[in-house]
Amino acid sequence: MNYGIVLRVLGSILMLEALFMVPSLLISFYTGQVDRFAFLITIIITGITGIILNRRKTPDRHIRPKDGLAIVTIGWVLVSIFGALPLYISGSTSTYIDALFEIVAGFTTTSAIIVSDVESLPLGILFWRSFTNWIGGMGILVFTLAILPALGISGFQLFKAETPGPIAGKFVPRIKDTAKILYGTYITITIIEVVLLMLGGMSLFESIVYTFGTVATGGFSIKNASLGAYNSNYIHFIVGLFMILSGVNFSIYYSLFKGRWKEILRDEEVKLYFVIILLAAIAIGINLYKTSYTSLGLAFKDSFFHVGSVITTTAYYTTNFDLWPAFSKSILLLLMFIGGCAGSTAGGMKIIRILIIFKVIKRDVLKIFHPRAVSPVKLNSRILPSETIARIYSFAGLYLILFALSTILISLEGIDLVSASSAVIASLSNIGLGFGIVGPMKSFSDFSQLSKLFLSLLMLLGRLELFTVIALMAPKNWRREI
Amino acid sequence: MNYGIVLRVLGSILMLEALFMVPSLLISFYTGQVDRFAFLITIIITGITGIILNRRKTPDRHIRPKDGLAIVTIGWVLVSIFGALPLYISGSTSTYIDALFEIVAGFTTTSAIIVSDVESLPLGILFWRSFTNWIGGMGILVFTLAILPALGISGFQLFKAETPGPIAGKFVPRIKDTAKILYGTYITITIIEVVLLMLGGMSLFESIVYTFGTVATGGFSIKNASLGAYNSNYIHFIVGLFMILSGVNFSIYYSLFKGRWKEILRDEEVKLYFVIILLAAIAIGINLYKTSYTSLGLAFKDSFFHVGSVITTTAYYTTNFDLWPAFSKSILLLLMFIGGCAGSTAGGMKIIRILIIFKVIKRDVLKIFHPRAVSPVKLNSRILPSETIARIYSFAGLYLILFALSTILISLEGIDLVSASSAVIASLSNIGLGFGIVGPMKSFSDFSQLSKLFLSLLMLLGRLELFTVIALMAPKNWRREI
Repeated sequence: MNYGIVLRVLGSILMLEALFMVPSLLISFYTGQVDRFAFLITIIITGITGIILNRRKTPDRHIRPKDGLAIVTIGWVLVSIFGALPLYISGSTSTYIDALFEIVAGFTTTSAIIVSDVESLPLGILFWRSFTNWIGGMGILVFTLAILPALGISGFQLFKAETPGPIAGKFVPRIKDTAKILYGTYITITIIEVVLLMLGGMSLFESIVYTFGTVATGGFSIKNASLGAYNSNYIHFIVGLFMILSGVNFSIYYSLFKGRWKEILRDEEVKLYFVIILLAAIAIGINLYKTSYTSLGLAFKDSFFHVGSVITTTAYYTTNFDLWPAFSKSILLLLMFIGGCAGSTAGGMKIIRILIIFKVIKRDVLKIFHPRAVSPVKLNSRILPSETIARIYSFAGLYLILFALSTILISLEGIDLVSASSAVIASLSNIGLGFGIVGPMKSFSDFSQLSKLFLSLLMLLGRLELFTVIALMAPKNWRREI
Repeated sequence: MNYGIVLRVLGSILMLEALFMVPSLLISFYTGQVDRFAFLITIIITGITGIILNRRKTPDRHIRPKDGLAIVTIGWVLVSIFGALPLYISGSTSTYIDALFEIVAGFTTTSAIIVSDVESLPLGILFWRSFTNWIGGMGILVFTLAILPALGISGFQLFKAETPGPIAGKFVPRIKDTAKILYGTYITITIIEVVLLMLGGMSLFESIVYTFGTVATGGFSIKNASLGAYNSNYIHFIVGLFMILSGVNFSIYYSLFKGRWKEILRDEEVKLYFVIILLAAIAIGINLYKTSYTSLGLAFKDSFFHVGSVITTTAYYTTNFDLWPAFSKSILLLLMFIGGCAGSTAGGMKIIRILIIFKVIKRDVLKIFHPRAVSPVKLNSRILPSETIARIYSFAGLYLILFALSTILISLEGIDLVSASSAVIASLSNIGLGFGIVGPMKSFSDFSQLSKLFLSLLMLLGRLELFTVIALMAPKNWRREI
């Protein structure tokens, strides 16, 4: 590993994090709440650590793939370790591990909550949690892609490891431009939603917080009842719409901006994404209407909102879906595994992988009759190399094995199987919410400290698409390059 | 499709089934219970139908792959349809669908029960249910492999579709000899277990019934409390041992017989099978001892028995494992997906597939660092073709997709998620027992008629390894060959 450059980049990331805490510091001083010294101390510690790391001499400025993996993974851990300090110092959480869990949940856009009564938290802390959603959403390290080129360091490996989903493609080739485009798109969508929410009667602070949670498909709220606290169909509609839009592959917005309509309409992943949302929402809507709802309109409103919320792994809620019938809940549970599109801020296994797995299964069924027929698997009219397919299958296999073994481990907490398995998938797919003891209105606070650390690791594994983190664990990656 | 030969073979199968009902007829006449006329009528109907089908002229005696698929799948359905008659006619079940469910569960070695009070059933019926386990265990159509060659028809396609597991190999090449060896092995093991159980104090009838359930990894019992009704460590040990031995690839016994020790010790699937049993049993044993058991010995006895019972998809039980802590239950649930070795009578996804998936994942993780390294996946020192790997992954994908979608459907029954999902996996993996409403001491009787038919289909899909049945559903397979 090229320790010099890895540490140097990590230093930049920490300096940036200190900068990102300034708005929270200002809010805390403005409100005069207990968290102002917490932010002040943390900014100083984080900033100084960043400066020290960044001052290292780096004779070799080449970032190899393994260096990229290290920067992404360690970077994510580091910003969480420092980012958790304000919560702990201000006394918002009782232990440091609780604070770490909450902030890992923030940066990974999982937003699993540890503090049951979020309404009691100081505003600076509330802003910081939601801001970690927003930063994590697009990837704190994608930001560094705008800085790295300025340092004259090629960062393509970074981008490859960072971008969610199996296919990086489609964006303009130069990484600096790519980062700028993503950055611009993300900020544009953010501004539009903030304005739309304010038009619905939310304060600027509320609008910003919920927009952060939405576009990052994070889901941190400042109300104990999540969006159920806002009795406004307009607000639910805007948040629901922007959740679903944030689960779309962001390259689509670039195509949109360039007027490439054909590309958008041809995109099989996006098509399947909307088809799944539609089918799931209709099935759940009918099920709700047939069982407990008296209004068909309300049944469909709740069904669409929560299907959108769960498939994009946001997990905002307007009602306690844990009380829904088993049919509706089992559909939501399946969506928790699927997740949103690759190249979006959503978590989960990603639509594109599900799509390709379906295509491969179809091919293999057809092969029974035509054993000698050569039938390549195509995506958007392009043939997929068999290596890509193998990689996708390995990912899916690993995801499910990890899910199963983690569920076994977490069930040692003595909780029921549904709670254990949904806590695991809520972490691994970066949702933050499940059923039973981790359902709506509940929190992860009852888990043991060890389980909280373990679930935090799952969030990180899920966010970095497993292989990135696992690869880093191989000892040979820690050898110094000669 | 070559309708002539398909119908002719199906005729032979039905004639054989009529013959197989004779022991039950004799028992029913000996005991003079209500089922004697049921068997008499069924034997006449089944036999005559078989003779009529078998009399067809078959100018073209060539069995193509699609004909083989049709014979296996339709054959399994036909024997179930006729085999269910005695249960319905004798009034053992209240509806014909209940009878069909019970007998499909028998022939697929699932042994999900519909009659809660089995002790009230006539002895002829009890024998017939268990005998369907035994017949289904090795595959009723493997029997026909001994008849088909006598008809001068090559039956290799049959064998390929019939043998459980992805790899047929290893057996002596000639199909007639293969059938004889399997047949011989199966009967030998059966006789040994019957004798051992009788030595433990069971009557001949009981010994035969439980041996049928064990060697077929079926699990039909003649007591409401399954093996919990027998308060004998010796009997539990013998049944447990033979369950585990029946979950081993049967080609191992042939190697044993031929003295090929090296082959046995080198077999990676069998090794993993025993490693999984050992690890799971130790984990559960400790969990039981730490929570509810006071005796370490009893904790390990129960743990080994039920791990063996669940991984081999037999589902005999000596205690109500649904009352165990979540940790133990989640391990059992995982074992329900895994199942036994390929080429055994066990169901599930099979150890060999899990093994290969693990190997492929390992290769793909290593590939991150050495992208250009060529690292073939090997099994027992032989390189696996990439087609085999793709097929295994497609199977696993389809298995899990089918599981997820079926769980959603079954949850329409208004039951909890754990009951719904374990009812589905209990059917698909041919276990017959799960948690909640389908746990020990419970039955499938509360499901709707439609759900019972659907679960029967899942049993068949699981038993015939999905692709066989799905392939048959393609309309083009029904075209008459010119």
